Amino acid sequence: MTVFEKNLHQDMVSQLHNFAAAGDTARLKVLLKHSPSLVNAATGNGWTALMYGARNGHLEVVQILLQEGCDTSIINKSRQTALDIAKFWGYKHIANLLANVKGDQKPSFLSNDVKEYENYFGMTLLDRRSDKRTDSKWLSKKQSHPATVYILFSNLSPLVTLGGGRESSQQPEVKLCRLCHKDVEQYMNQSEECTLIFLGVDLQSDMNLMAACNGRVQQEGVIAQARSVLAWHHRYRFCPTCGGATKIEEGGYKKTCLNEDCPSLQGVHNTSYPRVDPVVIMQVIHPDGNHCLLGRQKRFPPGMFTCLAGFVEPGETIENAVRREVEEEAGVKVAHVQYVSCQPWPMPSSLMIGCLAVAVSTEIKVDKNEIEDARWFTREQVVEVLIKGNQCSFFVPPSQAIAHQLMKHWIGMNANL
Amino acid sequence: MTVFEKNLHQDMVSQLHNFAAAGDTARLKVLLKHSPSLVNAATGNGWTALMYGARNGHLEVVQILLQEGCDTSIINKSRQTALDIAKFWGYKHIANLLANVKGDQKPSFLSNDVKEYENYFGMTLLDRRSDKRTDSKWLSKKQSHPATVYILFSNLSPLVTLGGGRESSQQPEVKLCRLCHKDVEQYMNQSEECTLIFLGVDLQSDMNLMAACNGRVQQEGVIAQARSVLAWHHRYRFCPTCGGATKIEEGGYKKTCLNEDCPSLQGVHNTSYPRVDPVVIMQVIHPDGNHCLLGRQKRFPPGMFTCLAGFVEPGETIENAVRREVEEEAGVKVAHVQYVSCQPWPMPSSLMIGCLAVAVSTEIKVDKNEIEDARWFTREQVVEVLIKGNQCSFFVPPSQAIAHQLMKHWIGMNANL
Repeated sequence: MTVFEKNLHQDMVSQLHNFAAAGDTARLKVLLKHSPSLVNAATGNGWTALMYGARNGHLEVVQILLQEGCDTSIINKSRQTALDIAKFWGYKHIANLLANVKGDQKPSFLSNDVKEYENYFGMTLLDRRSDKRTDSKWLSKKQSHPATVYILFSNLSPLVTLGGGRESSQQPEVKLCRLCHKDVEQYMNQSEECTLIFLGVDLQSDMNLMAACNGRVQQEGVIAQARSVLAWHHRYRFCPTCGGATKIEEGGYKKTCLNEDCPSLQGVHNTSYPRVDPVVIMQVIHPDGNHCLLGRQKRFPPGMFTCLAGFVEPGETIENAVRREVEEEAGVKVAHVQYVSCQPWPMPSSLMIGCLAVAVSTEIKVDKNEIEDARWFTREQVVEVLIKGNQCSFFVPPSQAIAHQLMKHWIGMNANL
Repeated sequence: MTVFEKNLHQDMVSQLHNFAAAGDTARLKVLLKHSPSLVNAATGNGWTALMYGARNGHLEVVQILLQEGCDTSIINKSRQTALDIAKFWGYKHIANLLANVKGDQKPSFLSNDVKEYENYFGMTLLDRRSDKRTDSKWLSKKQSHPATVYILFSNLSPLVTLGGGRESSQQPEVKLCRLCHKDVEQYMNQSEECTLIFLGVDLQSDMNLMAACNGRVQQEGVIAQARSVLAWHHRYRFCPTCGGATKIEEGGYKKTCLNEDCPSLQGVHNTSYPRVDPVVIMQVIHPDGNHCLLGRQKRFPPGMFTCLAGFVEPGETIENAVRREVEEEAGVKVAHVQYVSCQPWPMPSSLMIGCLAVAVSTEIKVDKNEIEDARWFTREQVVEVLIKGNQCSFFVPPSQAIAHQLMKHWIGMNANL
């Protein structure tokens, strides 16, 4: 090929990939009809049109490329197939299609392997029905209804049991104890310290999913909700405005001061409602795009590094909180900040707001009062511990932590251009 | 042109636009060298390569297109020039370049007309220096330093004055009173109710900008910070764990219980730190993409409609809070949720998290306990009141409110494909 021909070829491949990435099926078809040999063409990063279609969730693009006989087994420079990409980004229908093409006929594939982009503690299948919290008649009826499920907490820890019967499980399964009214009735009457929180009602439409998953994924969202509200009652027993005693109302979601003269009874004040503390947690990316900044606190297990994090302060935006915390803790300056996803963290009641942050300086100056160490790690190092599970020089938090998901997002993101 | 030639031309224009949008200067140059006549070509929405470069902040793309003699005065179907687009999306350097090409030589253009994507109350030029809050020697020295600036609040309202001398201002300018230590010394000693909050130090690098803007934009961020912390002290006078008296520490950012036996003194607890309440506020988009859902509360001025909003509950993600609130208040189901930007709202201390939300149902069922009314408004109706300022049938909050910015974002977003 001459230089000109090579450039033209590259431009056409790029065009095909753009159509696949944008879901432009009309142009994709025209171009493939004109130049069918392009169907498996890859660019420098090893990505094919199929991967771009899978990356952006374009089912029709994937269908067209499969009809044109594209090769689903091609791997890119990050050693991912189109199926890997569809699974990583949570496109169940595309992953299912690609998995079936490969002859993998697992019927349980969808519900087990491909999750939506949901963080641990973030998923719940309860409808909170906050409109019913002020309906004491309705609440009281539900309270004694035989189908009502109770979960018990002692000192902010839920009552659990070890489940059995799972053939493939490597470790015993921990399950929430689900009790009914007659199990707890006597206990509730005896104990003075009993706090009752109305968590919500089952979402009808998702009942099947809940059964299929054995309540494993969903129960964490319920625990997060219950533990946060209980922790609030635990630490906020008295009215902070006047120091007086309080009573619990609205299904456990309101505390009202018993002192008739208290200013907190004039109007609506946040002193009466549960507290949620917004926290920023950020994957800080080196200006070169190929390193990330991870730090560790003294109290961490030896060798563990994770994303920097800190509370959002009054009068501060999420983006500015990210910039302030990174500079305070590690001395690194951040410019661009991008929200990725969030996670409720019931220790006691934080909302972890996960962001990517792009550094514009690289010299690290650790504030020893805040953290013990902070370092730049290469993409390869993070892939090594996160994907391959090789934990030689350091390790990162497990997949339940949003920090883990942010790192994974970063790795996936950059593989995607 | 034959159909084939027309398709080829359209494909090349699309390719050029893709390169401009992606910042691919190398391919942009090659294509323009090969087909210089494409430089001003527009697609169905009236967008040119220059607009795509300006939209995505690619300075070099804009420079190349200007060198190739492109026409900067072309307007798209939304009647925006490339300059309008650069200004709307906050790309100062590009807006400056395009403005100068047009012969508009205002030196003050940047600091006055083009703002970064910052919401009211969100911008501050103070370094909070939280590391110094525990350094009482340093704080005390700063407190009496003649260069230290004091701003005064009475009953959560700041002391302001009316400024003059602005030739073009349509209404008198309200300015924060900036006092020094000797102005407030006597007052602080006399008053028992005086609470002192350390807000931070000037960010050296931005001193010029601060001077240029006359402290107008920046002062709102400072007020948000100060008012939120003061409101916390105002309502949280007593220890919520034991009801005991407290003392203020760490420059106003910590409250410690004076009761030696209080459990709040064991470990770190959020009872000692200012509260920030995360709130979701969402521009809900109709499944057809061309309507949005706005509601109103009884207490609003007649005719005002705005985005729906509500507090994030314990154990809840931002995305689920959006879905819950929209369904609770208006009976509309939401699927996809996307974070846009946030705004601290010091009434008393909220963090407004602004999102776009895509509805998957359209029937409205208003919960009269929460809101008075909710309706679908067309894009044209929102453009009418938001951009053209025609307030016939309804109106929306002013530009200081994040709701206003979310609506603007929605209008701008869809104009952009």
